[in-house]
Amino acid sequence: MSMFARGWIALALGVAALLSTQIVARGADDPLPSWNDTATKQAIVAFVTAVTTEGSPDFVPAPERVAVFDNDGTLWAEQPMYVQMTFALDRVKAMVPLHPEWKDQQPFKAVLEGDMKALAESGERGVAELIMATHAGMTTDEFEMIVTDWIATARDPRFNRPYTDLVYQPMIELLGYLRANGFKTYIVSGGGIEFMRPWTERVYGIPRENVVGSSIKTTFEMRDGRPVLFRLPQLDFIDDKAGKPVGINAHIGRRPIAAFGNSDGDLEMLQWATMGGGVRFGLIVHHTDAEREYAYDRQALIGKLDKALDAAVLNKWTVVDMKGDWKRVFKD
Amino acid sequence: MSMFARGWIALALGVAALLSTQIVARGADDPLPSWNDTATKQAIVAFVTAVTTEGSPDFVPAPERVAVFDNDGTLWAEQPMYVQMTFALDRVKAMVPLHPEWKDQQPFKAVLEGDMKALAESGERGVAELIMATHAGMTTDEFEMIVTDWIATARDPRFNRPYTDLVYQPMIELLGYLRANGFKTYIVSGGGIEFMRPWTERVYGIPRENVVGSSIKTTFEMRDGRPVLFRLPQLDFIDDKAGKPVGINAHIGRRPIAAFGNSDGDLEMLQWATMGGGVRFGLIVHHTDAEREYAYDRQALIGKLDKALDAAVLNKWTVVDMKGDWKRVFKD
Repeated sequence: MSMFARGWIALALGVAALLSTQIVARGADDPLPSWNDTATKQAIVAFVTAVTTEGSPDFVPAPERVAVFDNDGTLWAEQPMYVQMTFALDRVKAMVPLHPEWKDQQPFKAVLEGDMKALAESGERGVAELIMATHAGMTTDEFEMIVTDWIATARDPRFNRPYTDLVYQPMIELLGYLRANGFKTYIVSGGGIEFMRPWTERVYGIPRENVVGSSIKTTFEMRDGRPVLFRLPQLDFIDDKAGKPVGINAHIGRRPIAAFGNSDGDLEMLQWATMGGGVRFGLIVHHTDAEREYAYDRQALIGKLDKALDAAVLNKWTVVDMKGDWKRVFKD
Repeated sequence: MSMFARGWIALALGVAALLSTQIVARGADDPLPSWNDTATKQAIVAFVTAVTTEGSPDFVPAPERVAVFDNDGTLWAEQPMYVQMTFALDRVKAMVPLHPEWKDQQPFKAVLEGDMKALAESGERGVAELIMATHAGMTTDEFEMIVTDWIATARDPRFNRPYTDLVYQPMIELLGYLRANGFKTYIVSGGGIEFMRPWTERVYGIPRENVVGSSIKTTFEMRDGRPVLFRLPQLDFIDDKAGKPVGINAHIGRRPIAAFGNSDGDLEMLQWATMGGGVRFGLIVHHTDAEREYAYDRQALIGKLDKALDAAVLNKWTVVDMKGDWKRVFKD
């Protein structure tokens, strides 16, 4: 090969390398554009830099870069009521023609009459009854279709937008930033695993197999010569509080190095992820923005943040001040 | 840029393209070198080609290319006794100094005296007792260390090799061939999920999070200020027979398009994967080679293959004749 040709090839390769450097640099300039440039954002970037810098004592190999995210209140809004609860109430209304007895039977009567006081009085047992009546008694395929239809059409009354629009844009960027740095991102939610899987890939970029959640039992059956999984009205697993580390171990089989939550339900998950030695990252979304979203913490009925807020100080977890740290809350 | 320079760059790019084509072509020439060129191998290649050829009516997008593999008898040997059972017996012997009462107590006495008849007489209940005594009562980290130490040192008496050497070389190649074609490969085994995870990545290239198996319950606790998961002597889930589709749905959340098994314990998994419309692939490893491995099927106490062998004909599943289809059985 002539010197001349070698020179051209080297130049061509050089241009290509330069272009790819620029692309990386532009991304690194602002991987989190919806985050204000506060200590919170700096802590996130410092952690990711530490665990991804080869040769650094804090370096973590890519397969061990597991980040777990709570869903309700961490990735999307959970006020004034969990979205899945709204789904259950809507299902009661949709299913009542098949269950005329519900008109005279609590807690269904309360739902049909919009009597929130009577519904609250039915307590956890009433809620469990509503969940089983609306989430069981069909195949997994049928339930998937019901969820997919509902999530495409239901709208939040305050913001008049589909619920999947009320996801936090800064957290969407954070998920992408972590994945761009070799992390695997998982949802670890108290919500139903089968309620989330139909839409998490589209909305969060989190594939179905990376969703961990609460579940009811299913049973395998042959029906008319075709195999189905049928959903039974029996609790299988509650993926909340001390259940979250159990769910993480069962599904992922690796200990996360970063955990993101917003309530006391995430305390044990944060402890499990961060108290294992090495550079670890815990983050709590503190809802401080009544204007753009909601403001609640220690006294909240839904998404109570009390013990975990105290633990954040003790364990040096990063606390997001939604009002001060986020340029925007929801996706555009 | 001069024509001359352009010519050289084009040539350089052409050489690079040619080299990469050759690499692909060489792999494609024989992706399964330990398989004889029989109808079995041809069926595997035809399936993979069909679902990966863009524009073909049978094309399946990569995220849906989920392949599930049984472990015992499908990826490694299960005769004359499940490896995990040998592990449990070895653990009883190792733990007896801490449990002197076991010398007079069945089924432990039978294990310590090598009295296989008395052990068999203890039945399922005896086996469950052995499993709980040896698999529970420690943290997940401690159990991982015990398994890792044991699997590194224990040897199969007939072949005088570590158990992780007694994996089927043709199946290892098949796993790699599927992954090279965009498949995600999972283990779906009746064996313990925590017994497999410490070594599946190294031995099969299957990462921890892609292992589905049977489990006992764990509980999250703070011990001396550190979070642990403690293993309880309570059954959580049996990932066998009709449990396999349930485990697949819980962990993966997608319906596989290919399933690989060897016994009646895999029947429902094979049904679930293949009877869902579209081009699907079911394969059964039939142990027909007493010389190089073992020969067993309808009458076997371990790995009984009876109903699933009949179902294979009905459902057009591919049946591997180990003796005729495999050039070699174990890895070198």
